[in-house]
Order: sequence, then C-alpha cells, then structure tokens
Amino acid sequence: MASDSEQSFLMNCWYVAAWDHELIDGTKLARTILEQPVVLYRGESGRVMAMEDRCCHRGAPLSMGRVEGDCIRCMYHGMKFDPSGKCIQIPGQDVIPARLGVRSYPIVQRDHLVWIWMGDPAKADPALVVDYEPLHDPGWRGMPAYMHYDANWLLIVDNLSDFAHLAFVHTKTLGGSEEYAYQTRPLNIERLADGFRVERWHMNSDPPPFHRKVIPDKTAKVDRRNIGRMLVPGIFFLESMFAPAGSGAETGNLAAARQYRNCQFMTPETRRTTHFFWNYLHNFDLDDPNIALSLCDSLREGFMEDKAIIEAQQRLFDREPDTQLLAIAADAALAHFRRIFGQRLTAERDTIAAAA
Amino acid sequence: MASDSEQSFLMNCWYVAAWDHELIDGTKLARTILEQPVVLYRGESGRVMAMEDRCCHRGAPLSMGRVEGDCIRCMYHGMKFDPSGKCIQIPGQDVIPARLGVRSYPIVQRDHLVWIWMGDPAKADPALVVDYEPLHDPGWRGMPAYMHYDANWLLIVDNLSDFAHLAFVHTKTLGGSEEYAYQTRPLNIERLADGFRVERWHMNSDPPPFHRKVIPDKTAKVDRRNIGRMLVPGIFFLESMFAPAGSGAETGNLAAARQYRNCQFMTPETRRTTHFFWNYLHNFDLDDPNIALSLCDSLREGFMEDKAIIEAQQRLFDREPDTQLLAIAADAALAHFRRIFGQRLTAERDTIAAAA
Amino acid sequence: MASDSEQSFLMNCWYVAAWDHELIDGTKLARTILEQPVVLYRGESGRVMAMEDRCCHRGAPLSMGRVEGDCIRCMYHGMKFDPSGKCIQIPGQDVIPARLGVRSYPIVQRDHLVWIWMGDPAKADPALVVDYEPLHDPGWRGMPAYMHYDANWLLIVDNLSDFAHLAFVHTKTLGGSEEYAYQTRPLNIERLADGFRVERWHMNSDPPPFHRKVIPDKTAKVDRRNIGRMLVPGIFFLESMFAPAGSGAETGNLAAARQYRNCQFMTPETRRTTHFFWNYLHNFDLDDPNIALSLCDSLREGFMEDKAIIEAQQRLFDREPDTQLLAIAADAALAHFRRIFGQRLTAERDTIAAAA
Repeated sequence: MASDSEQSFLMNCWYVAAWDHELIDGTKLARTILEQPVVLYRGESGRVMAMEDRCCHRGAPLSMGRVEGDCIRCMYHGMKFDPSGKCIQIPGQDVIPARLGVRSYPIVQRDHLVWIWMGDPAKADPALVVDYEPLHDPGWRGMPAYMHYDANWLLIVDNLSDFAHLAFVHTKTLGGSEEYAYQTRPLNIERLADGFRVERWHMNSDPPPFHRKVIPDKTAKVDRRNIGRMLVPGIFFLESMFAPAGSGAETGNLAAARQYRNCQFMTPETRRTTHFFWNYLHNFDLDDPNIALSLCDSLREGFMEDKAIIEAQQRLFDREPDTQLLAIAADAALAHFRRIFGQRLTAERDTIAAAA
Repeated sequence: MASDSEQSFLMNCWYVAAWDHELIDGTKLARTILEQPVVLYRGESGRVMAMEDRCCHRGAPLSMGRVEGDCIRCMYHGMKFDPSGKCIQIPGQDVIPARLGVRSYPIVQRDHLVWIWMGDPAKADPALVVDYEPLHDPGWRGMPAYMHYDANWLLIVDNLSDFAHLAFVHTKTLGGSEEYAYQTRPLNIERLADGFRVERWHMNSDPPPFHRKVIPDKTAKVDRRNIGRMLVPGIFFLESMFAPAGSGAETGNLAAARQYRNCQFMTPETRRTTHFFWNYLHNFDLDDPNIALSLCDSLREGFMEDKAIIEAQQRLFDREPDTQLLAIAADAALAHFRRIFGQRLTAERDTIAAAA
Repeated sequence: MASDSEQSFLMNCWYVAAWDHELIDGTKLARTILEQPVVLYRGESGRVMAMEDRCCHRGAPLSMGRVEGDCIRCMYHGMKFDPSGKCIQIPGQDVIPARLGVRSYPIVQRDHLVWIWMGDPAKADPALVVDYEPLHDPGWRGMPAYMHYDANWLLIVDNLSDFAHLAFVHTKTLGGSEEYAYQTRPLNIERLADGFRVERWHMNSDPPPFHRKVIPDKTAKVDRRNIGRMLVPGIFFLESMFAPAGSGAETGNLAAARQYRNCQFMTPETRRTTHFFWNYLHNFDLDDPNIALSLCDSLREGFMEDKAIIEAQQRLFDREPDTQLLAIAADAALAHFRRIFGQRLTAERDTIAAAA
C-alpha cells in the first residue's frame, strides 16, 4: 500500500483543473496540480490561461500578479508574460532574452469544466477530453461542486469501486440500509482497457434518504440500479435509476423511473491531497431548482462521510507506509483499476525514457 | 541524550492503557500506545477489548466502527471482528479466509485501571501487573486523572527522580519553599533491580500550599517525608507524610500524621509523547469529597508546571538531538533508572533475536 | 537557488539581537539566532547578558529561569550561572565541577541596539560594530521597530537590492507610481568589498503616500533620490531625499529638501526565518512625535507587502529546492552581494578549517 499512497502521476492526460465559475471576475486561481503550482485566469478575450505559478525571475507567485488583457504581470518587479508564457516586458530593461518565460499549460474549456494538460504539450489533443453528455444535454440539470481531500486520489477511486460501502458509510444519507451490502452484489464487473464498469441492482428496497427528499411518495418500495464507470486517471460516472418496485425496470420498462447522472473528477493536488469535482444531475422536475440544490447538499453530506474515513486511511499510510492490506472478493474492480493504472504509468515512463 | 529521547520501548510488560471510566457508554477509545494505533472498548459482557485500530481490509479505523456484543464491526465495508481479532463476517462474501483478522492485545482490568500488553501475547501473565494497594484499600480515597505530554516518557521519569525540583518548579504549589532544595537531601537511594527507592525528610517546615488547602491549621510547622519508588517501564509510587513538627514522626510516631499515596503511570504514546495517568489518594477526612477534588486540582496545577519545562526539554531534543547534558550529584536515581532500563531493553532484544 | 535558501551563516560578525527596549523590566528574552537558542537579559548592573538558552544539566530553558543580580538561575533544579556562563551554585551540592556551565555570547550595546557575536569570542572586537550615525545624532528622530519573517534573510536582502519593486509592490504605500520602474534606473552600482551602494533619482514625480502623509503640501511635484547601502551579513542603510521639483537638488541644493535615514538589520533566526529590525528616521518637525509614528506605521504597512511576497518565495523554495531562477539586468546589485557573501563564507570556513 505504501507504493499506492506514493503513487506517481500519469502526465499525458487531461485533468479537470476547475469549474469555470471559479474563474469569474478576474480571479487568479492558485491551484497546485500534480505537485506543480499553477495559476489559472480568464483573460479579457474570454480565453482561460494556465501558467506555472512562479515568476521565472525571483519565484514570486504570478497569482499575486495582475491580469492585463490575456497576459499576466508579476507584481514583484513588473515582468509581463503573454498567454504562451513568454516574457514580453521588463520595466527598465530594453532587451528581453528569449529564454525568459514561464511554462504555460494547454487548456480546454467544455461544459463548464476547465481541463488542463500537465504533460508534453505536443500530445495535448483536445479530442482526448472525455465527454459527459448529461453536462450539455438540456434534459439533465445539476450543480457543479468542489471538495478538497487530504488523501491520495486513488483512495477515493477505491471508495467508488465498491458500492457495498453505501450500506455502512452512507446508511442514513446515500445508502439507505445495511441490506444493500448483504442482499446485492455486482451483476458483473467489466474490466475495460481504461477502467471498469459495474452494475448493481437492489429490488424492492426502501428509497434512500437523498432520493426520498426529492420525490413525492416517501415510502413506496423501489427497484434500484447503479451503473458505475471508472476511467483512468480518476474519472467516475454513475447512472442511478429508481423505478417503482415490480414495474419491470430490470426488463427495460423505465417509464416511471427517476434517474440521476453523476460525474466525479479526481485530480491529484499532491501525492497525498486531491481536488474533487462533481455534479449530480437529475432528469425530472427540471423547473424546480430546489431539486438540484437538495441533491447537491445530500451528496456533499455523503461525501463528507467518505472523507472522514478516507482521510483516516491517508493518515494511517502517512504514519505507517508499510501497512499491508488484505483483499476481499469485493475488491475485484479496485484491483483491476490499480493494475491498469500501473500499466499505463509504466508505459508512459517507457515512452518518455525512449524519447530521451 | 539523543538516544534517550529516541529511546525505544520495552515491549513485554504491562502498560496502563486507560482508566476504566474512559470506556463507559460504548466509547470506542482510539489511543496510540508504543506507536501502535489501538482501539479500546467495553463489550456487552463487560469485558474490555483492545485491537489494532485499523481494519485489515482497507485500513479504516475500527474506532469509527460499531461495537456488537463483544465484537466490533468496521463501518467502511462492514467486516466484523471477534474479541480475538478474527474476522467473522464479510457482507456479501460467503467464505472468510482464515488469515483475515486484526491484532488483539491482552488486557487486564484491576482497580479501575485498564492494563495492556503490547509485546508477545504468550508472555502476558496477569500476575505481572503491578499492584498498588491504596487503589483497592477503603482506607484511601482519591480521583483518577489523565494528562497528555508532548514529551518522551523518560523525561517525566527524570523529573520524578529528583525531588529538588519541588523547590524551584513547584514553590507555590506542591513544594512550598526553596529551602527544600538547600536543606534536604535524599537519605539514601536504593538501587533496585527494577527501579529505585528514595526517601527525603524536611523537618520543621511550612506546609506546602497543596497540603495547606486541605488541613484546618494552615500555619503550624510540619515534619515532612517523601518516599518515592520508580519501577520499569515508568511507574511511580509516592508516599507523602506530614506530621506536626517535633512529634517524633522520624522515630515512628505517626499518630497525628496526615498521609498521601500517589501513583503515576507513564505510558509512551510515541517516542515523543506520553499518556500520563495518576491518582493522588489521602487517608483522612474520607467522608469529605472535596479533599480529593482539591488534591486532584492541586496536583494538576503542579503537573502543568512540570509539563511546561518537560515539553521545553523535548522541543530542545527535537531540534538538537545531539545535545550533551552534564550530570550532577542529584542525578544518581535518574542515572540508575536509565541504566537498568537500558539493560532491560537490551535483554529483551537479545531474547527476541535469539527466538528468531 | 536551493543553495541560497539553505545558505549557511557567517559566524564571526556582529548581528543585531534586540532593541534594548525589548529587555526592560526583567524580561528574559528567548530568541533563536543563527539556529542557536539564546536568552538575553539585562542584569541589575545594567549590563546585558546573552547565554545559551538551555541549562547544561537537563536542558531546561534558562529563559524560564530567574535573574539574580547579573546572574541567571535555572528554575528546574536551581543551578545558578554567572555572566560568563560558569555554574556557581548547585542547591544541595557542595563541590561544583569546573566544566559545568553554559555558553555565553559577547554583547555590545550601542544606540539602543543590542549586538551579539555568535562566532569565536576571541574575535569579538567591539570596534567592528557598524555605526549608524543618525541613531545617535539629535538631528534625527525615529522609532525602533521589529518584524519576524518566515523567510531566509537573503530573500530580504534581494528585495532591498532592487528599488524597482517599489513601483509594483508598494504602489500605494512607499512607491507612489509604476512610473518609478519605467522612468528611473540606478545611476551607478558601486560594488564594495563588503556590499554595494546604489543611487536612484526620480525627477518631477508625485510624492509617494508615506511621504505625503507627513508634509503640508500634498500635491506639489518632487525630485526624489534614494541612496541604498547594503553590508554583509545583512545590514541596509537608506538615505531618502525629497526636494521641490526643479529646485536643483541634483546639483546640491538641498535647502528645501526633506530627508529620511533608514536602517534595517536582518538577523537570521534559522535558515528559513529572520529577525528584522528597523528604524526610519526623519530630520524635520522634530518636535512633532506623530511624524515618527506615522512613518513607522507607513513602513510597517510597506514591509507587510514585501513579507507577503518574500514568504511566498520561501514556501516555493521549501517545496522545490531545485527551482532555477533567471537573472535580469536589475539583478546586478543582488548578484554582487550574493557573490561577496559567498566569498566571505568560504574564507571564514577556510580560516576555521586551517585553525583546526
């Protein structure tokens, strides 16, 4: 487990750096990503820039600087950098050496997400950004949200890899009953090249608290289905469906079902801390803004329950990096993800070494 | 001194883990002992259990779990452990591998103390628990108390090894006057195989503040005797006697004496922090509960004075592990204790190495 | 830059340890200097003593002790030390071994500054203390002040080595306008054997806010001159002059000028923290005490702006000790200072090695 919690990062892939509302009104957002200090800002043109958050001259943070047009000026000695990171002005100096500049990072804005590429810029193909349709489908409504974890992102991936924890961690919030762990199992676990997919049904169960809050009939039994999909480096999509018990949802009748779509993006801040972005969307009563608010609150409440346990795990691994863990049957998805993530990491390192 | 403050622990002996009132009402007490995370709880049977405070599956703290009978259930994925630490249930899994389990620690409950054995369980003989008679003698009354020190336990042992500090650290609380350091000396220092015993008299002295608070005559001079006994790994017993000056206490007439019995248990939390348990008992006015309260407050006030100095020592050793200290004559008891402790530690290591 | 932020200290030179008002009324000032814990106190004779802040017996801080005459007594077991650091009393022990003692440091008091010599006491020549005339010239009035920096002292030296930062960091406090960086340059940079001297003029400019606060005419243009002198190991003197624009100050007519004299003393606490002492003196309206108060406040306001940036630099170097910085033309003074400081450090080490 030591190696897990010290896991290095996959560099050549897109990570969520921010929700775009975090950059309104001239905000210079200082955010560490993959242990690199980054400043994010929206220029006058509307374009979002990401730069190394340290001036190349004396190391002052550019996030303490000033946005000018699409450029940013360090407010220590006044050096100005264009969106590519090139230094274009030094007050009191006429000639600017070509080597003067800071690193800038490729950015893609899509569906209110700001994606960043921390690896080789030449490989930063926008087509590689993962699309999550509910974020731009008017049939779905949600609220973007953010939390910070004092834990390695893979511990959050682990958490999402086994829904049995809903029964114990989230009994009174997202889970609903301990039965869930005893009576249900993953139908199958699809081991994908870039992650996994799991499906789990719970027939004739009580609606869990978060769902009960946003439906009129608080007591009728439901047939419940969760389909989770986890992708490298740490992107999770969850389809949740609640249909009236016995209405035939398992054979395709979803006419009376209420559905949710949930995306979660885990971006390593450091090896032991994580930026966690999510949006929990619903497809019913779209004219009632309180549904999205209630779901956002419920999910945050549930994630706080996860956070307490996951950060306790991190503190354990910090204190005892050689802790040995023992797998159980339910760890199949988790184990597959860590295996393919390790393979991707090795492949990336080999590619980088071969190029050097 | 560096080696002192980094002193390793004696494993095969009993340590005080808690007062039993710390475990009432279903408390799952998370307490680190000898750098091991431990959860302590009282089961339905009344028995106290101590287990490794991390689930063997994913490392979640069992202290965030749930007590069921005498068992404890991890509330991450629901694994249940019996008092021996064996895993006896995994929700959703029929077969439980035999190797699944957490470490459990032998416990002895006696006189409201919960003793734990952190070393080889096969050697955990309850007969080795040190008995302190005043704790179960109805002729003595006190109050159990606890403090946490940010300091290595041996620095507290050092402190208790030379009563001269009463004169300077505790002038206005436990000591009473600086004369104590100038006019009195240890009568003799008995070097024991498992610690030491010192006796010190102060004739015709003013009663110290803590004693004055609980006696009717605040001003009459007293003949004062302290007998301290320190035992490996860090257990201190103190007999204090105050007799009217000139009443012949030194020749055995204790008829008009007021006496105290004090036990102090130092349990290493880590190499640089300590759990400190104590009870200061008296044998007079037993029907007046305020005496015990006043003494508990006075002692806490005095220990806070020690704590300020002892934690300053620890910060020094943290910052400068190579600090050289110079012994004075009064360090005889301290030096003997550190010597025999070192011998015990070496012997234990040799035994463990020979067995391996 | 890693080596910069880990820069070792020059030992054989005088450092400012305190302003003398910090030692009134029996204060035992615990202050770490060059990573050594020191206690400073004024004895009954008026003399200031500096000692190692740890008793040689058990390491208790002497700053928790008691001043007796010019001596200090450890209040753990009562050992007493004379001004030379020699132990002269052990309560309860008749013979005191000659080796018992703590280190004492040479001290010079001058112009309300308490200077300390942390290196070889045999070399501690009081004639080497740098004199700053305005501190004892009745024609100047100021207020002594202190700030603590969570940053290596050389980062503060860097800051003071390029006045261009006035334009950006202190636009609304000490600087006044961004023009300063664009329209002015150092007239010349004198590379001294023990530091540097720079002079910079700004003709026909608006008076900066800190100056405007203490003059009657808030709007008239001024000709402004700054002359800075930096000395090893980190002593800065600044002459600032403001004359009516066009009054001929640049040719020597200072009749209508208002002038300031500013001394700043950077004393390393540790490699990553600094004691910063300063006094900003003026030579006009000497009967109005509010001028000195206003200037002290203005300077503190400005230094807080520096502190925000400088401590951000330190955090960067802490996190990424291998950060590479790129020099610009304005770094000439900074680069010279670091060069000669490095030479002095090497020379001192060679001398110490040769003597060993």
